[in-house]
Amino acid sequence: MKTLGYYNGKYDEIENMVIPMNDRVSYFGDGVYDATYSRNYKIFALDEHIDRFYNSAALLRIDLGMPKDEMKAILQDMVNKLDCGSQFVYWQATRGTGMRNHAFPTDGSKANLWITLKAKDIEDTYKKIKVRSKEDTRFLHCNIKTLNLIPSVIATQEATELGCQETVFHRGERVTECAHSNVSILQNGVFKTAPTDHLILPGIARAHLIKACKKLGIAVDETEYTMDELRNADEIIVSSSGSLCLACEELDGKPCGGKAPELLKAIQDEVLREFMEETNV
Amino acid sequence: MKTLGYYNGKYDEIENMVIPMNDRVSYFGDGVYDATYSRNYKIFALDEHIDRFYNSAALLRIDLGMPKDEMKAILQDMVNKLDCGSQFVYWQATRGTGMRNHAFPTDGSKANLWITLKAKDIEDTYKKIKVRSKEDTRFLHCNIKTLNLIPSVIATQEATELGCQETVFHRGERVTECAHSNVSILQNGVFKTAPTDHLILPGIARAHLIKACKKLGIAVDETEYTMDELRNADEIIVSSSGSLCLACEELDGKPCGGKAPELLKAIQDEVLREFMEETNV
Repeated sequence: MKTLGYYNGKYDEIENMVIPMNDRVSYFGDGVYDATYSRNYKIFALDEHIDRFYNSAALLRIDLGMPKDEMKAILQDMVNKLDCGSQFVYWQATRGTGMRNHAFPTDGSKANLWITLKAKDIEDTYKKIKVRSKEDTRFLHCNIKTLNLIPSVIATQEATELGCQETVFHRGERVTECAHSNVSILQNGVFKTAPTDHLILPGIARAHLIKACKKLGIAVDETEYTMDELRNADEIIVSSSGSLCLACEELDGKPCGGKAPELLKAIQDEVLREFMEETNV
Repeated sequence: MKTLGYYNGKYDEIENMVIPMNDRVSYFGDGVYDATYSRNYKIFALDEHIDRFYNSAALLRIDLGMPKDEMKAILQDMVNKLDCGSQFVYWQATRGTGMRNHAFPTDGSKANLWITLKAKDIEDTYKKIKVRSKEDTRFLHCNIKTLNLIPSVIATQEATELGCQETVFHRGERVTECAHSNVSILQNGVFKTAPTDHLILPGIARAHLIKACKKLGIAVDETEYTMDELRNADEIIVSSSGSLCLACEELDGKPCGGKAPELLKAIQDEVLREFMEETNV
């Protein structure tokens, strides 16, 4: 079995799983999610992901209906069931079940908990990727990890058709984040990354990059930066839980980065070392 | 049977219906919808709703996989099955089924067609409602009728808690639309309504209001208007397929409108007459 799906206590291979038509995800995308990777059945940075998940839910007033320890135990139990230690561990909660009505359910319907697991290793963080940029037309709640992801779907499809691995969003000149990653730059020895306001997700890989930089004595600057700074950066770094610290070699069809390879490698080595040590149970 | 759900050819009472976990609605809200009402088993303004539905799908590159006539026939067939002629007729299409991946499916997975029907009359269009206003923080694709509706869910819940029936969104001073309706004003004998750009849905009830005004010799002005104009309007009109032409008596806790009752009633009479005649089969 290489996948496992879970819905409110029932589980099976994902392709066999069904959910009620009236789950509020169906009509409103009314839910939040989080995701990370496991290795040796150890879920990486689980506490941080669970904290963010509960925060996303709270910001949308979704009552998850159980304490964090209980949810962590359910996730670990499901991860243990799949016959592969390296997994993409994804979970979400939706705001209950009921006849379509925008307002919250009033019949006591509780949040539905979903989990999907599949056998998967993290990506090679040393590979170079190509990215393209696009005006950021998403809503102003990008700090919440919601299931309202159509703009990211469209941007990813467009990137794929352009032979790119990610889309860098910008609001006017200001770089925000990627379609499903954060984006940061190395510039004159400084690690620069957008501040965690309502325009970007507070990425956990991003937080680990900052931690790595601080350990390595690299200055960190969490302030807004522009498309021009991106184009001229010494390195462009795309980070997510599945890729840790990818560097870009092409932006909008033109070469980019590649001017601070040693600094880049020091950061990559450090975040990969941390992942491997934490999951080396 | 007072409800009917349909998914790719299967149908049952909505509460008995299940869908695959891997429908792309589950992870991305990746779909579009439309809705109207039937009376005497006649679906009101079906061609207009179908046209808008196909347009929403095209804007997101969702291939509906069938011509409009076939979809209309499926909808009519389902409406005929429910033992009540007055129904809320809702349908949506999602971008196929497959393991979670932002980019479009590459395995030939087709759009999934969903329908939900429930016994329901249109609302009393002559009742007065209370509304509240809120900064519009939605994405910049409000012209597409998508399933990414969390901001409308939250706004509706907040409105409900405030004793209001709708939320009027505004971007800065500019009034856009409501959480699930359009909003227009009567001002010095002119019907004023926001233009159909990317910030509002091209409402079909809105289009019928414009048609009614033209028939009645009331000037129509499709230009941006401000919160100040809203507060001082002779009448504030909230329109949707289920309510046709509701007037507001309270905005943000203060009395509003009520200064052009005869003009308002003439428009209400005309849109209601049209609905009744068109569905008087």
